[in-house]
Amino acid sequence: MPRYRAVLAYDGTAYQGFQRQAGQTPTIQGAVEAALARVTGQTITVLGAGRTDAGVHALGQVIAFDAEWRHEAGALLRALNATLPTDIALQSIAVADAGFHPRFDARSRTYLYQFYSQRERQPLWDRYTWHVPFSLDGAAMRRAAAGLVGRHDFATFGQPPQGENTVRQVFVSALEGEARFCYRITADAFLQHMVRSIVGTLVEVGRGALTPDEFEAAFRAADRARAGPTAPPHGLTLYAVEY
Amino acid sequence: MPRYRAVLAYDGTAYQGFQRQAGQTPTIQGAVEAALARVTGQTITVLGAGRTDAGVHALGQVIAFDAEWRHEAGALLRALNATLPTDIALQSIAVADAGFHPRFDARSRTYLYQFYSQRERQPLWDRYTWHVPFSLDGAAMRRAAAGLVGRHDFATFGQPPQGENTVRQVFVSALEGEARFCYRITADAFLQHMVRSIVGTLVEVGRGALTPDEFEAAFRAADRARAGPTAPPHGLTLYAVEY
Repeated sequence: MPRYRAVLAYDGTAYQGFQRQAGQTPTIQGAVEAALARVTGQTITVLGAGRTDAGVHALGQVIAFDAEWRHEAGALLRALNATLPTDIALQSIAVADAGFHPRFDARSRTYLYQFYSQRERQPLWDRYTWHVPFSLDGAAMRRAAAGLVGRHDFATFGQPPQGENTVRQVFVSALEGEARFCYRITADAFLQHMVRSIVGTLVEVGRGALTPDEFEAAFRAADRARAGPTAPPHGLTLYAVEY
Repeated sequence: MPRYRAVLAYDGTAYQGFQRQAGQTPTIQGAVEAALARVTGQTITVLGAGRTDAGVHALGQVIAFDAEWRHEAGALLRALNATLPTDIALQSIAVADAGFHPRFDARSRTYLYQFYSQRERQPLWDRYTWHVPFSLDGAAMRRAAAGLVGRHDFATFGQPPQGENTVRQVFVSALEGEARFCYRITADAFLQHMVRSIVGTLVEVGRGALTPDEFEAAFRAADRARAGPTAPPHGLTLYAVEY
């Protein structure tokens, strides 16, 4: 039975996260598995590269699954997209090696976090962008963000999923924009809530509650209690998974 | 009684357009008037610069209204934003001249129309961006778009609201992007459905059904029957009104 690899995009607003869990519905994984069952008649388990939290979005989640399918992969993609709810869509599909695993084989993941700084809320941005209702010092946030690049203990910014260690390698940590900000981070792997905790703490720097040096000291302390508030999920998007 | 002038933003997805009309609810105007009634206790009519259609959004609609209000204008803005539904929000407010009229005093309006060209739908873009599921020739569309600048009869692209003439002055008509496109148009005034008709016809150029020269001939014919399909409303945003 061939293994398929696909890039999946979704608006996570209505979902309890990627991963199927008892009592937590709907999930992205559950919706894709339901579409696969309708299209193929088979009971198929979907593997994902990243366990995005409730309300988090994806432009480039990568999934894999095994399915019997007698037609081209492109026909499977079109059948799935015609069956999936409108807030989930495959972007591409291909047959992969039988051993391909989207999570274990990934070299790195890139997340984007969008937030905007103005007193009044902006309804056209609110769905995918966190509203911070005070002014922010972009230069100070950029300086703090740049200090995260490298191999470090990120315990300040999150717990490991299963008691693993908290050392991660960050390849990119950069903030773009003024007033409307986009934070981009690429790392080998992420702790739970890591991007949202980093962004929440960067905003503490932006509003002057922490200096960039105090941000760095909190980060180096590897102490979860030193982080700022966790930014809300709706600003976060899994942008890409690199192999 | 002072006249207030305010900039209004909204996600138009859930509304039957800006203008209050019998049997057509909800409308943006109706929602703002309801908030004004709750905040001030007065029955107040709101004037708008542009009558956006059902499903069309705004970043910079301009409105005006007369109200008795004993506090600062900023307090009125905050009270209104706390009362309005989350998909509507004032961005700024100020006391205006008693004779200020947002529609008649406007020198020009700027609209943005966003669309994207790829086979599969992208759920994170679908709310505010029209999905065109085939490839488009950006250079041909840019050439056609540029030809609209100037004072012309735009009858090909729309009807006037009340039997007025169909001559309009276009100051900016420009297409940016590749695959994900943003069309920007600034004109002294617009015919009904004019931006969406232009974009629908530009996409005919993009997919090769019309050459840029045929686009120009259709435009010069000043014949509504020569336009392409009207693009859907959800890609359109009233960006700004200039005075």
